[in-house]
Amino acid sequence: MSGTTTTKAAATATAWRRVVALSGGVGGARLLDGLQAALPPGALTAIVNTGDDFEHWGLYISPDVDTVVYTLAGLAHEARGWGLADETFHALGMVSRLGGEDWFQLGDRDLAMHLVRTRALAAGVSLSEITATLAARLGVATRVLPMADAPCRTILVTDEGELSFQDWLVRRRAAATVRGVRFVGSPPPSPGVLAAIAEAELVVIGPSNPYVSIDPILSLPGVRAALAERPVVAVSPIVAGRAVKGPLGEMIPSLAGRGASAAAIVAHYGSLLRGLVVERGDESDLGDVGVPVCATATVMHDRAARRALADDVLAFAERWR
Amino acid sequence: MSGTTTTKAAATATAWRRVVALSGGVGGARLLDGLQAALPPGALTAIVNTGDDFEHWGLYISPDVDTVVYTLAGLAHEARGWGLADETFHALGMVSRLGGEDWFQLGDRDLAMHLVRTRALAAGVSLSEITATLAARLGVATRVLPMADAPCRTILVTDEGELSFQDWLVRRRAAATVRGVRFVGSPPPSPGVLAAIAEAELVVIGPSNPYVSIDPILSLPGVRAALAERPVVAVSPIVAGRAVKGPLGEMIPSLAGRGASAAAIVAHYGSLLRGLVVERGDESDLGDVGVPVCATATVMHDRAARRALADDVLAFAERWR
Repeated sequence: MSGTTTTKAAATATAWRRVVALSGGVGGARLLDGLQAALPPGALTAIVNTGDDFEHWGLYISPDVDTVVYTLAGLAHEARGWGLADETFHALGMVSRLGGEDWFQLGDRDLAMHLVRTRALAAGVSLSEITATLAARLGVATRVLPMADAPCRTILVTDEGELSFQDWLVRRRAAATVRGVRFVGSPPPSPGVLAAIAEAELVVIGPSNPYVSIDPILSLPGVRAALAERPVVAVSPIVAGRAVKGPLGEMIPSLAGRGASAAAIVAHYGSLLRGLVVERGDESDLGDVGVPVCATATVMHDRAARRALADDVLAFAERWR
Repeated sequence: MSGTTTTKAAATATAWRRVVALSGGVGGARLLDGLQAALPPGALTAIVNTGDDFEHWGLYISPDVDTVVYTLAGLAHEARGWGLADETFHALGMVSRLGGEDWFQLGDRDLAMHLVRTRALAAGVSLSEITATLAARLGVATRVLPMADAPCRTILVTDEGELSFQDWLVRRRAAATVRGVRFVGSPPPSPGVLAAIAEAELVVIGPSNPYVSIDPILSLPGVRAALAERPVVAVSPIVAGRAVKGPLGEMIPSLAGRGASAAAIVAHYGSLLRGLVVERGDESDLGDVGVPVCATATVMHDRAARRALADDVLAFAERWR
């Protein structure tokens, strides 16, 4: 082992000025919320996966960006893991009655987000510009950067053919075994992404799915090279051999040929990582992963737990300042 | 006078097989609802104004078609005169919060109508086809034909320049005096319109605004010629010198240079009309309008009143069978 920290470090977060976090949906969004609370306003930049963006009802939907924005605005539905807390589904009910597509759950207020964004995109505003506008309107202090303004689509190669993530997860209920993941499109990162990484004192990879939430970001031109120059710490999305949320637990065996574990996460990110944060107890099964490990409470049941994890991650990362 | 009927005629509606009604929004829709109740299922065809159709939030909105469909489905908000009875405005509230356009009141369920229609249009389905689908989904037995599949836009020439009807009515609250009306686009009537008129035993012009609701229909190639061959009866939208609803009362003086009255309606439609239905009491001020007049209760406060008016119109029209 390269040094495991299990004591809870004192919060030193106020000293950080520029922190970047890479995020998919729920898990990453919750850590972002903790980091936003722990850091001075404006110190945090979120770079968010757009590989699962899709069109539905003619509207541009960016599931991970929306989850991040709603979570950072304090508006997310916590138990459900998507959409807004105070939400109704009257439009969806009527679409269903009218014979329209009703397989994707779109709430009435959520719909407003997609309507306003789709209008802006049609008027030539970029995804990153309209995301900044919408986040500001909802009072979000963190800079939220969609990873790219142009499409990079995540395709799952499954036993039942190639599927988009939404098709696979929502329509097929993750039934088909995933044999591979590929990305269609290799656009430049959106404006500010590479600069934010280059200027970051620390980059945190949130507890998101490496294959479908983080790899799309890493696939963009220049991102890996920029990250290689910075201290990068990942929070493991695998706790006690299982994914905290989502289909990752089943994807690791079929994609990596090994059991789901924090060690598999380290192996996946390879030389990018300078440190790993795992659930307390998981460090004993980890073996020598070649990087320092921080073991703490990583499952974020409430906002206090998010903040505590953020404090732990930042304290752990002090060694690379 | 050419013969005024003031006695309530016995309902003979079941004998009619093919009745066409021209309609704008609220008033026309309510008479359609009465005619639908009075006639055998399938006997009624509604030809509805699309001159005020517009795009909002990137969605295709057809205000009069929607009012007609909602009214015939028994779903309309009666007091408000637009939209659905059981409605919420959560998407609109969020659009407003996000800085989007919020001047047009779109309900959550209403939004579903526009979303499904806009998708269909984008996929190459015609306005008349998707209208038939949506009406059927909502259980409407009447054939609802948008007047045309291609655009014919009503433009109001006002003291403040040229405005669309929605701009003038909703955004400017009908403040600018209307000096003229013109139609941009002269598409063919939608499939079935001319045939429905040609086969009609009776054509009823609903108590809609002649300038902005009925004239757009009459402006389409072939419609006037087809109507000239059929018995056409209009229900006056002017009662006791005022419009039952909407801005017509102010439009007649500026557009026709005379006071608002049922006589102005007859003069406007001219030789198209074979008969006129007016509010009881208004017949005494009418003078000799050159066509038979039926005086009855034309203000439709409830569904029973719609049905009663429809019965009266049909009984009055027996003379042209």
